[in-house]
Amino acid sequence: MILSQTLEQLANYCKQYGFVFPGSEIYGGLANSWDYGPLGVQLKNNLKQTWWESFVANNPMNVGLDSGILLHSDTWVASGHVNGFQDPLLDCRVCKSRFRADKLIETHSKGTVDADGWSISELTEYIQIHKLKCPVCGNMDFTEIRKFNLMFETHMGVIEDQKNTIYLRPETAQGIFLNFKNIQRTSRKKLPFGIGQIGKAFRNEITPGNFVFRTREFEQMELEFFTVPGTELDWFAYWKDFSRRFLIGLGIQEDHLKFYDHPQEKLSFYSNATTDILYQFPWGFDELWGIASRTDYDLKQHQKHSGESLEYLDPETNEKFLPYVIEPSLGVERLFLAVLNDALTEEMVPATNEMRTLLKIDKRIAPYQVAILPLIKKQHQEFSLDLYQTLLSKVNAVYDDTGNIGRRYRRQDAIGTPFCVTVDGATLEEKSVTVRHRDTMVQDRVPIRELADYLNDQLKG
Amino acid sequence: MILSQTLEQLANYCKQYGFVFPGSEIYGGLANSWDYGPLGVQLKNNLKQTWWESFVANNPMNVGLDSGILLHSDTWVASGHVNGFQDPLLDCRVCKSRFRADKLIETHSKGTVDADGWSISELTEYIQIHKLKCPVCGNMDFTEIRKFNLMFETHMGVIEDQKNTIYLRPETAQGIFLNFKNIQRTSRKKLPFGIGQIGKAFRNEITPGNFVFRTREFEQMELEFFTVPGTELDWFAYWKDFSRRFLIGLGIQEDHLKFYDHPQEKLSFYSNATTDILYQFPWGFDELWGIASRTDYDLKQHQKHSGESLEYLDPETNEKFLPYVIEPSLGVERLFLAVLNDALTEEMVPATNEMRTLLKIDKRIAPYQVAILPLIKKQHQEFSLDLYQTLLSKVNAVYDDTGNIGRRYRRQDAIGTPFCVTVDGATLEEKSVTVRHRDTMVQDRVPIRELADYLNDQLKG
Repeated sequence: MILSQTLEQLANYCKQYGFVFPGSEIYGGLANSWDYGPLGVQLKNNLKQTWWESFVANNPMNVGLDSGILLHSDTWVASGHVNGFQDPLLDCRVCKSRFRADKLIETHSKGTVDADGWSISELTEYIQIHKLKCPVCGNMDFTEIRKFNLMFETHMGVIEDQKNTIYLRPETAQGIFLNFKNIQRTSRKKLPFGIGQIGKAFRNEITPGNFVFRTREFEQMELEFFTVPGTELDWFAYWKDFSRRFLIGLGIQEDHLKFYDHPQEKLSFYSNATTDILYQFPWGFDELWGIASRTDYDLKQHQKHSGESLEYLDPETNEKFLPYVIEPSLGVERLFLAVLNDALTEEMVPATNEMRTLLKIDKRIAPYQVAILPLIKKQHQEFSLDLYQTLLSKVNAVYDDTGNIGRRYRRQDAIGTPFCVTVDGATLEEKSVTVRHRDTMVQDRVPIRELADYLNDQLKG
Repeated sequence: MILSQTLEQLANYCKQYGFVFPGSEIYGGLANSWDYGPLGVQLKNNLKQTWWESFVANNPMNVGLDSGILLHSDTWVASGHVNGFQDPLLDCRVCKSRFRADKLIETHSKGTVDADGWSISELTEYIQIHKLKCPVCGNMDFTEIRKFNLMFETHMGVIEDQKNTIYLRPETAQGIFLNFKNIQRTSRKKLPFGIGQIGKAFRNEITPGNFVFRTREFEQMELEFFTVPGTELDWFAYWKDFSRRFLIGLGIQEDHLKFYDHPQEKLSFYSNATTDILYQFPWGFDELWGIASRTDYDLKQHQKHSGESLEYLDPETNEKFLPYVIEPSLGVERLFLAVLNDALTEEMVPATNEMRTLLKIDKRIAPYQVAILPLIKKQHQEFSLDLYQTLLSKVNAVYDDTGNIGRRYRRQDAIGTPFCVTVDGATLEEKSVTVRHRDTMVQDRVPIRELADYLNDQLKG
């Protein structure tokens, strides 16, 4: 029996076991920021490494990049972020609450109106005609709507002036476009090829929320895949399917995913196809992965603003042109949340009639792969610690000697450890250990000299 | 014959082969920022992973953390950064050049004076007595010395006021202290134990430089190791030696390292021992790794400023106390630079009397471990690509079919690939390939069915 959980239960689980803690908690917290504890960082690293192998290191078409969080500010003029990456905000004059005008309208219309992309005058008109009230205090006395840029601003160097204003990148993608020529030259890649990057990005969201789903500081895994114009929609289909298979490969259930193809009239002006892969989060289907066909918009903009040619020279036809780009863009934290939500369950243990918390996470991305447990601490600790040390260089292992063995099994079930290796009285005599399987709770007796190979086989499968 | 290179040669090498590009280069660059290309990101990832395994994942004493770059601003009041993390600056009134007063004095004295930590009046007095002139224009007309904070400042939320000023973290360490209790509770670790973290940090340095050695955006690998007071100096010695062995293990030559123990009178007031591991960079010995015994200073400060108890309850004695902390702190970019500098060499190939560029980097951290090369593209490409695909899931492989085989060997030598697998005419008949060893240039003939095991054995050794 699989029970789904609320977001609050998921957040509590994460805090209890050391996956995620509220950020700066001892200082009363920093709004909607989160720190990743010992298990959280292991899971996050495993997810990043799996993405990196799949999209970059083990992918013959692609190479990697690690560009700065701080880039030349012209980057964001060219990309359109300085002028276009803005939310329309207004305040209630009475209670001083602040809202996004489009969200206010969408909430008021109970979701029947989609105000995304409306102009200030369209937003203002709707609010006046429908006599919208402040959802907090009920008054109808709003300020004018102003545009607020979502980029974090700071200053480089020692004088604060306009000239040295720089931004924390709101996406990793633009760092890839800036380096397109350098990478193409040094890697000598021919079209089609991709450049992948993992890294932090920052957006000064007015309404972050839903646990780690929308935060001001977050981490992206982005691929920019450069293609010959005219072939881009085939590659768009290719990366959509590749991304879907990646998620299924991580153990996410296919019926928890949905594809939302943006209708033509809602596409950004530079895009000729965009699909969101939605995941069934505790609050409903919401965006997990954005896959966009961005044409040559970004390269063209940077070419124009920098004055540098970013054209690709086709070695066969000798033609020069700007490649068209497909961008699959995934947030580490959203994937983290989806994977945990999909794996976390409670089930009845028939033998004892007790409930157990079970993280049915894929073996390869579990925070720990093997737990080493001495049955009786005093008698079996020394041997267990030796075994733990030996296994550490081969698998991601953890050692636990606290409390009775049943409680320790439950704890490992709850954090998703696929295998528990128990050292007991017979171990020293027979040179064997018990290996308990997380999902089935079946226990195998395995000779110690075969243990490493046994675990390796099991973890591969 | 090993030739050492200048920093400029190293930077040119890095750009030529795709390790490191000047940041935002198409926009004329962003002062002293650098982006890591395909080979650079692979090497950096390998270094980070090696550190993480050694200090965190495979270390039975330690666990990991990934805390925010944005933390509650009280963090930096408590840590002393808001009031103490400052450089003394002064301007030349004539040519408007800006200098760090302490560096100006040290340069003027040709290194005989160490002005680090001097008060503003001490600095001012020295400059007046010794009649220091502007090194740029030669005039003697400086402004007063002012303190300039090195933290990047930004604002969270939509109103810019004092209240929501936050900082980009200047070090990863404080995020660890904030989470000490949450991690200790959930991991149930007993003293001594450590918490490790890898992540970006930012310092608005007035004089960044020496290629990637000192940059405003950089990445740290820090361990905070919590000990029972009174035992900390033993652990200080332990981590000094552990860190030294880590560097040797990466292939850095021991005589390129020096230990600088800070004399008692130069220690920070809260430290009872600090050692810098210096590496012989192209410009001389300079700090690679700082190892500091920080007593209970940080935990005490956060306890005081947050009002939350950060004490550890000893389960055996039932005593409560603040642990003492040992901090080995290493910059990813400095390690990257040291590893490349130690590995890069030029040598004469006796057979051809030609020079070859050789990156004699440790096999485990090389950007690519194996290159697959078809001898003649038209004839051997198909088989080579199949082999490449098969090997990709087992080792970090690259495929190259451009230019003659000698040139391709040279290129793989230059980027440090330990093994070149060449597919030739005999491959299809005999089912075997040539494996060429980077350093010795010895070539082995290996049956294809044994290739994966052969490479695995070679890469382990």
